[in-house]
Amino acid sequence: MDINSYVDNVCLLARESSREISCITQTQKDSILNDLVNEIKKNREDIKSENKIDIEALKKSENFAESFIDRLLLNDLRIDAMIDSIVEIIAIDDPVGDIKELKTMPSGIKVGKMSMPLGVIAMIYESRPNVTIDASALSIKSGNSIILRGGSESIRTNIVLEKCVKKALQENNVNTNAVQLINKVDRKIVNELLVRNDSIDIVIPRGGKNLIKLVDEISSIPVLKHLDGICHVYIHEDADINKALEISVNSKTQRTGVCNAMETLIVDTNISEKFLPLLEEKLVEKKVELRGCSKTKKIINSVKDATQEDWETEYLDSILSIIIVEDLSGAINHISTYGSGHTDVIVTENDQVANSFLRNVDSSSVMHNASSRFADGFEYGLGAEIGISTNKLHARGPVGIEGLTNEKYIVIGDGNIR
Amino acid sequence: MDINSYVDNVCLLARESSREISCITQTQKDSILNDLVNEIKKNREDIKSENKIDIEALKKSENFAESFIDRLLLNDLRIDAMIDSIVEIIAIDDPVGDIKELKTMPSGIKVGKMSMPLGVIAMIYESRPNVTIDASALSIKSGNSIILRGGSESIRTNIVLEKCVKKALQENNVNTNAVQLINKVDRKIVNELLVRNDSIDIVIPRGGKNLIKLVDEISSIPVLKHLDGICHVYIHEDADINKALEISVNSKTQRTGVCNAMETLIVDTNISEKFLPLLEEKLVEKKVELRGCSKTKKIINSVKDATQEDWETEYLDSILSIIIVEDLSGAINHISTYGSGHTDVIVTENDQVANSFLRNVDSSSVMHNASSRFADGFEYGLGAEIGISTNKLHARGPVGIEGLTNEKYIVIGDGNIR
Repeated sequence: MDINSYVDNVCLLARESSREISCITQTQKDSILNDLVNEIKKNREDIKSENKIDIEALKKSENFAESFIDRLLLNDLRIDAMIDSIVEIIAIDDPVGDIKELKTMPSGIKVGKMSMPLGVIAMIYESRPNVTIDASALSIKSGNSIILRGGSESIRTNIVLEKCVKKALQENNVNTNAVQLINKVDRKIVNELLVRNDSIDIVIPRGGKNLIKLVDEISSIPVLKHLDGICHVYIHEDADINKALEISVNSKTQRTGVCNAMETLIVDTNISEKFLPLLEEKLVEKKVELRGCSKTKKIINSVKDATQEDWETEYLDSILSIIIVEDLSGAINHISTYGSGHTDVIVTENDQVANSFLRNVDSSSVMHNASSRFADGFEYGLGAEIGISTNKLHARGPVGIEGLTNEKYIVIGDGNIR
Repeated sequence: MDINSYVDNVCLLARESSREISCITQTQKDSILNDLVNEIKKNREDIKSENKIDIEALKKSENFAESFIDRLLLNDLRIDAMIDSIVEIIAIDDPVGDIKELKTMPSGIKVGKMSMPLGVIAMIYESRPNVTIDASALSIKSGNSIILRGGSESIRTNIVLEKCVKKALQENNVNTNAVQLINKVDRKIVNELLVRNDSIDIVIPRGGKNLIKLVDEISSIPVLKHLDGICHVYIHEDADINKALEISVNSKTQRTGVCNAMETLIVDTNISEKFLPLLEEKLVEKKVELRGCSKTKKIINSVKDATQEDWETEYLDSILSIIIVEDLSGAINHISTYGSGHTDVIVTENDQVANSFLRNVDSSSVMHNASSRFADGFEYGLGAEIGISTNKLHARGPVGIEGLTNEKYIVIGDGNIR
C-alpha cells in the first residue's frame, strides 16, 4: 500500500471509531482502562523483552547515547508507573455528556452547554514508550480516537503496548480503531498525517523543541504545544527573604531539564544587595552557573556577563541568568519581551503588587509565592497531563482530560419559535 | 511604503497596544464605549454623507447589484442599530481579570483561573460597515487589539467610523492603535496579514463562503469560522404535531438566507404520513420548493426528487430537502454524514430520545423542541456576537466576548516548593 492510501485508511478508521467512542459511558471507559491495567500486568514479560530488543537495536545504531537508552527503557518500576497513571485517569470524573449552566432566556428557551470529545487526536512523540499508554488512556477517558506515532527506536515496545490497549477495547466491545499505532517507520507518514485537517482535529507533539517546531511548521491542523519554557521568578522589594531563597533555589534546581524550571531571575534593585549574596551562596553550592547584568555583577562575584542572548535562552541546564530591575513594571516589561508565556512567578508579601503581577503577566501559569515547578497537570489536580500549551486559543497551561474536550450549546424548548 | 513594511508596522502597533488595552478596567472600557456612542451621534451626518459617496461609487462599478447597495447602506435606522449594539455590549460583564475556581491542592498551593484577552484579532469582512463598529466594541470590551479589513467598497464609511472609535479611545487616554483600520485597498495586504502568526492571535472572517474559504486556505493563524450551515430538524415519531409544524415552518421560513435556517427536514417513517401532508400545505403556501427522497414522494405530491447533492447543500433560499428515516439512529447517521456541525434540532415529547439526540449529535448547537433560528449570540444571552464557530477547538457556536478571551492558570502559595 502506498503512503497516501495507508494514511487515508488510518484516518478513515479513526473518524469512524471516533463517533463510537465519543458516545460510550464513563462506566464503559473505566472498564476499558481497568482491563488495560490487567493486560499490562499479564504482558509484563513480553513488554520488557520487546523493549530489550528495541534497546539492543538502538545500541547498534549511529545515534546511540546513554540518555537515549534511559528514555527508551521500560523496567518493572516504569511499568508500575504506567499502571499508576492509568489508575489516576480512572479516578478522574468524565467531563463528557452532562448538561451544564442551563439558563432560561427571555424568549423562553433554556440554553446550556455540554462537553464533547474533540474527535480525533494525532500524537507525535519521541522515544519514551510510556506516552503510548498515557495518551491512549487519556484519549479513551475523554472519548477521543487517537492516532499514535512514536519514535522508530521504540517501535517494538509500542506495538506490544498497543496490543494491550486494543485487547482492552475489544473485551469491552468498543471499536479497537479508537487507538491506532502507526507501525510503519517511514517519516513521510508524519508529513501526510499533518495535512489531514478533514480527519484529525488536533495534533499533540511531545518531545524536543526540534520535533515540535517541525510539526508546527508542516501541520495544517491545530497543534497543542509549547516551544519554550523561559520561566521567570521575580523577587519584589517586599519579598520575604526566606521564601525568596527557597522558591528561587527550588525553581532552578529541583530539576533543571524541564520546561517549568526557572531560567531567568528578576530582582528589584531595592532588595538586591540583601538577597543576591545569600542566593549566590546557595546556588554556588548547587553548582549553578550564574550570568548577570552589570548591576548584578557589582553585588556578587561568581557571575559571568549575561548578554541579550541569555534573556532569550531556555538553558534546560544548571545555568541561571539574573537581571536587576527598578520596579514591578520593569519586571513585567522584561517578561513580556523575553518570556515564552509558560510560567512566571512573583515573590512578595505585598498582595496589591502580587495581584497586579497576576493580572498583567499574560503567561499560561502566573504564580505568587510558589515555585515555578508546580506548573504541572498533576499538581493542578488535572490528573495526568497530555502536554502543556502556551497557545492563546483553546487550552492554556497543563492540559488534561478537559483540554481534550470542548463545549457545544444545548437548547431546550417547548415548541419555541422566533 | 511597500506592503511588507506597511503590514509590519500595523502588526507592531497592534501588539504594543494589545499589552495596554489588555490591562484596562471595566470602567475604562465602558467609558470608551459610551464615548463611542456620543461620537457616532455627533458624526451622524458625516457618516451618512461618506456612505453616500461609497454607494455612488459602487453604482458606477461593474459589480453593481441592488443587494450590494443594501448591504453597504447606512441610514439613520441602521446607525441607531449600531448604537444599540454598543449599548448592549456596555451592559455585558467584563469577563477579564477575576480569579475563578480557586481550589487548595494537596501540596498546599491554591490553583485557579483568570480570563485574559486573546491579544490581537484580525477581522476580514465584506461590505456591511456596521461590522466596523460591532467588532471594535466587542474587541475593546474583551481587552483585545483589533486590525480591521473591510470591503474596498465601504472604505470611506469605514474610515469615518474608525475615526469615531479612535476619538473615543483618545478621550480615555488609551492607545488608539487598539483599533486599526487597513485603509489601503490592495488585496495583497490580506495575504500578508494572514501569515503573521507571530503578531496576530486569531482571524475572524465575516462574509460569504468564498471569503471564508479563501481566508482559511491562506491563513497560518487560527481562523474562527463556519463554512456551511446545513441545519437539520428531525421530527421523531413521538413529536407533538403542532410543535413539529411550527418549528419546521419557522426554522425554514422565518429568514431563509441565514446560516441557522433549516436546509434538510428528517422525518420518522412512523409519523411521516400524518405529518408531511400538513407541512406540505403550510410550506407550499409560503412558496417553499420541496425536494424529497423516494418515500417522501409517495406521501406528498408537490415535491421534486432529492439527489445526493441536496443533502450536501446549504440552499440559503426557499428550498427544503426532506428525507424519511427508520428511527433516531437513522437521523443521527444522516446528520453525521451530511451535517456541517452548525445547528441540529429534534422535535419529540420523548425525553429519553431527546437526551440521546442531544448527547450524540456533535454540532455546535443541538436543540430539543426549538427552532434552529435560535442559534444566535443574542438569543443565547451573549450580547452581540462576533461570529459563529463550527471549529472543534476553542469557542463553538455563537461567539461573544467570552470567546475572545481564554483562561490562564493562577497559582497562589505561601513560599511553597516542590
